[in-house]
Amino acid sequence: MSLLTIDNPVFVTYTVAGAIMILKLMGQGWMTVYRMLKADAGWATPEDMRSGLINRNPRAGQLDPNDYVERSRRIHRNDLENIPAFLACGLLFVAVAPPYLLANILMFGFVGARLLHTVAYATEQNHEVRATLYTIASIAVIVMAVYVLVAVVS
Amino acid sequence: MSLLTIDNPVFVTYTVAGAIMILKLMGQGWMTVYRMLKADAGWATPEDMRSGLINRNPRAGQLDPNDYVERSRRIHRNDLENIPAFLACGLLFVAVAPPYLLANILMFGFVGARLLHTVAYATEQNHEVRATLYTIASIAVIVMAVYVLVAVVS
Amino acid sequence: MSLLTIDNPVFVTYTVAGAIMILKLMGQGWMTVYRMLKADAGWATPEDMRSGLINRNPRAGQLDPNDYVERSRRIHRNDLENIPAFLACGLLFVAVAPPYLLANILMFGFVGARLLHTVAYATEQNHEVRATLYTIASIAVIVMAVYVLVAVVS
Repeated sequence: MSLLTIDNPVFVTYTVAGAIMILKLMGQGWMTVYRMLKADAGWATPEDMRSGLINRNPRAGQLDPNDYVERSRRIHRNDLENIPAFLACGLLFVAVAPPYLLANILMFGFVGARLLHTVAYATEQNHEVRATLYTIASIAVIVMAVYVLVAVVS
Repeated sequence: MSLLTIDNPVFVTYTVAGAIMILKLMGQGWMTVYRMLKADAGWATPEDMRSGLINRNPRAGQLDPNDYVERSRRIHRNDLENIPAFLACGLLFVAVAPPYLLANILMFGFVGARLLHTVAYATEQNHEVRATLYTIASIAVIVMAVYVLVAVVS
Repeated sequence: MSLLTIDNPVFVTYTVAGAIMILKLMGQGWMTVYRMLKADAGWATPEDMRSGLINRNPRAGQLDPNDYVERSRRIHRNDLENIPAFLACGLLFVAVAPPYLLANILMFGFVGARLLHTVAYATEQNHEVRATLYTIASIAVIVMAVYVLVAVVS
């Protein structure tokens, strides 16, 4: 019997957590776009210097790195190092039928920690705050992956 | 009843769209390899300067960034910011049983927009072209994720 | 009938290979953290220069790129260009019911090649070693994706 259906409450948890994280990932791309337009800098590519609807007043320096923009790219990179692994791991986790409470703690713990990580990064909190949130999310994925291995090997 | 089987036409759509996007992602790595070899530059790592089958004539400057190579890496990064999220989101979308036509529009819309995005980026089209294709693909994923959330929460 | 259950031996293979790759991805983040702390350099972000539990003795140069740290980031980037695609592709592959032996060869071939790729990269082996391992893993994913397309289209 398949556990990967919306009749399974653990799969619903995964679906909600996963969809929130997917929206978070897509939104980060838009934060970078917003910041590039606002800073009028941090463009990635030479042809972006051409005059057009997006770049009405090309000026020297638009291609230089800009920390306001690069910060959004670093948040994105950090997300990409964690969220796709979570999305794959969550599905495996559902398939080995974990306890409902554990699944909710791990999945929504991951979601909460990652959302707060972005808030902390965007508002330039101390390294320790970011590191703590990164660690919580990372451990949630590691616990799920180890749980999956133990469940299928044993 | 599981919807994640090839008896379900929406899952077949996801399978075809997903496999094309996976091949696209893998191919981008090979475009970077091709460009590094052709430009004889843009190598990422100090030991690549050693003489060998891949680098027969080491010369100063091979480790410097090279826009022809970096462009392929930027395309790849842009893909990685979008395609893994699509691959995870598409599966969730199939699981909530969307209309077949809607699934085809969103999934093949995403695939078409992302393939054209790479063509536009590789051929140095104006920023507006890339931005439009990026937006179409991004909105397709966002619509799928919101649809999933509404379907399981309601 | 769903093939995405742990009653299906091919799915178990995918589950084991996937969980190992997920742990590998998460571990790479921790290698970067370890190297940043050990080198006391390669920090990504201006606020990391503030004195605190993680950075007890701020000094000029901590934000400069450091090859020991950047190497771990390059390994991570290379992983991100390959492992999420594998995780998505493996699931599609299971869904089209491939032969058990073929699935084991491709999936554990991928896992072995990617783990050795990191060993080769971290120990600064010649480019040819890395390139060979990259190629094996990339071809495993490409074969799976093409197999999926042929299976559902035919």
